[in-house]
Amino acid sequence: MTHRFFVDEETLERAVLRGDFARQIANVLRLRPGDVITLLHAGVQSAVVLDHVETDEVTGRVIERGTAEGEPRAAVTVALPILRGQRTEEVIEAVTQLGVSRVVPFVSARSVVRTLATAKLERWRRIARESAETARRGRVPDIQPAAQWPSLFEALDAPVLVAWEGEALCRLQDALGPTARLSLVIGPEGGLAASEIELARERGATTVSLGPRNLRSETAAIAAVAQVMATLER
Amino acid sequence: MTHRFFVDEETLERAVLRGDFARQIANVLRLRPGDVITLLHAGVQSAVVLDHVETDEVTGRVIERGTAEGEPRAAVTVALPILRGQRTEEVIEAVTQLGVSRVVPFVSARSVVRTLATAKLERWRRIARESAETARRGRVPDIQPAAQWPSLFEALDAPVLVAWEGEALCRLQDALGPTARLSLVIGPEGGLAASEIELARERGATTVSLGPRNLRSETAAIAAVAQVMATLER
Repeated sequence: MTHRFFVDEETLERAVLRGDFARQIANVLRLRPGDVITLLHAGVQSAVVLDHVETDEVTGRVIERGTAEGEPRAAVTVALPILRGQRTEEVIEAVTQLGVSRVVPFVSARSVVRTLATAKLERWRRIARESAETARRGRVPDIQPAAQWPSLFEALDAPVLVAWEGEALCRLQDALGPTARLSLVIGPEGGLAASEIELARERGATTVSLGPRNLRSETAAIAAVAQVMATLER
Repeated sequence: MTHRFFVDEETLERAVLRGDFARQIANVLRLRPGDVITLLHAGVQSAVVLDHVETDEVTGRVIERGTAEGEPRAAVTVALPILRGQRTEEVIEAVTQLGVSRVVPFVSARSVVRTLATAKLERWRRIARESAETARRGRVPDIQPAAQWPSLFEALDAPVLVAWEGEALCRLQDALGPTARLSLVIGPEGGLAASEIELARERGATTVSLGPRNLRSETAAIAAVAQVMATLER
């Protein structure tokens, strides 16, 4: 298996890598001309044979391009409450491995943590990138700035499913059908307020149950994304 | 919602609670005669109206008995590698919320952590009890002592599904059918050895894939249990 790098631009015929990429390839991995690496961008992977390796610049030629193997067909967005401590980080790591395209953190009426510092957002983006590499994905999920509940629904692609412990009839698996995109909203520890559920429904969202047992937010997020991915990739 | 207590014995007509239970009811929760609590044992719940509340003894009368609402119909056993640090604890918490009946920790050829101290096993049992309470389950999953790979399969109920990254054809969701019991084996960080897969198959296990992306053991465990529960409770 070749070393994989997520790059910010599409790689067509020639690749030129500088900065951290070049340093890592030349000094850490000690690759040489003739070695092959994989560059990934937006779900496309390019196999590149290196022809020039220096600490400040590495160049190579594309020998194969194609769809990245690890990417799901459907684009799944997950909206997550900002949890205390490192718990949101663990969820971001897990849902990245499971294949989500986008994470939208949000603040709702009963949220304990109500702001998302830039440093924390940057840290979450690093975690998403590293997890995407480990999971051998073809795309790094986009981690967006925090949204407030009322504006959250403008940021989400329909259909939007809101996991809610008050939903008695419709289970997540009942609400899932073939779709190219889907958004999943996970409630915060203290639950969602009735007025928040009302607003979500006005914006077209469907409430779903994750089953009869009471799940912590992080378990709910991982379990729901796993179910969605298994169903959409069926 | 009433306070819920997991007790070691079945409660038929009368309940007598001593020790920590009595102290918690009398001193912490400050319940009084006439208040109702729920006692849970092996998936059966008994509603008990208290008639006598003292720090050293609480007694009451059963007013209703029935199947605990939060229990899944199927008994799912999950066999987990012993992970580094607190990672196994987080998995035990999550799979308890999701509804497993039994956890069997195991050691395999590439396991980094090779022993399970009694203190750690006791801690895992406490975590399982607390998580079962929070999840409003009717049963505390049984956390068993560690098994070595060759003897693991004697401890598991058939059918046994082994999540293996080398399985290319059969996905977990393809292998799931209606069943009253099922065991799920999650591989360790370094993967399972070919000889271990061979032994598992000789013992009747089926290897399954959790999808094209590379999952860490803890994500694999939570995602697989979530899929199994959603399918068996369909």
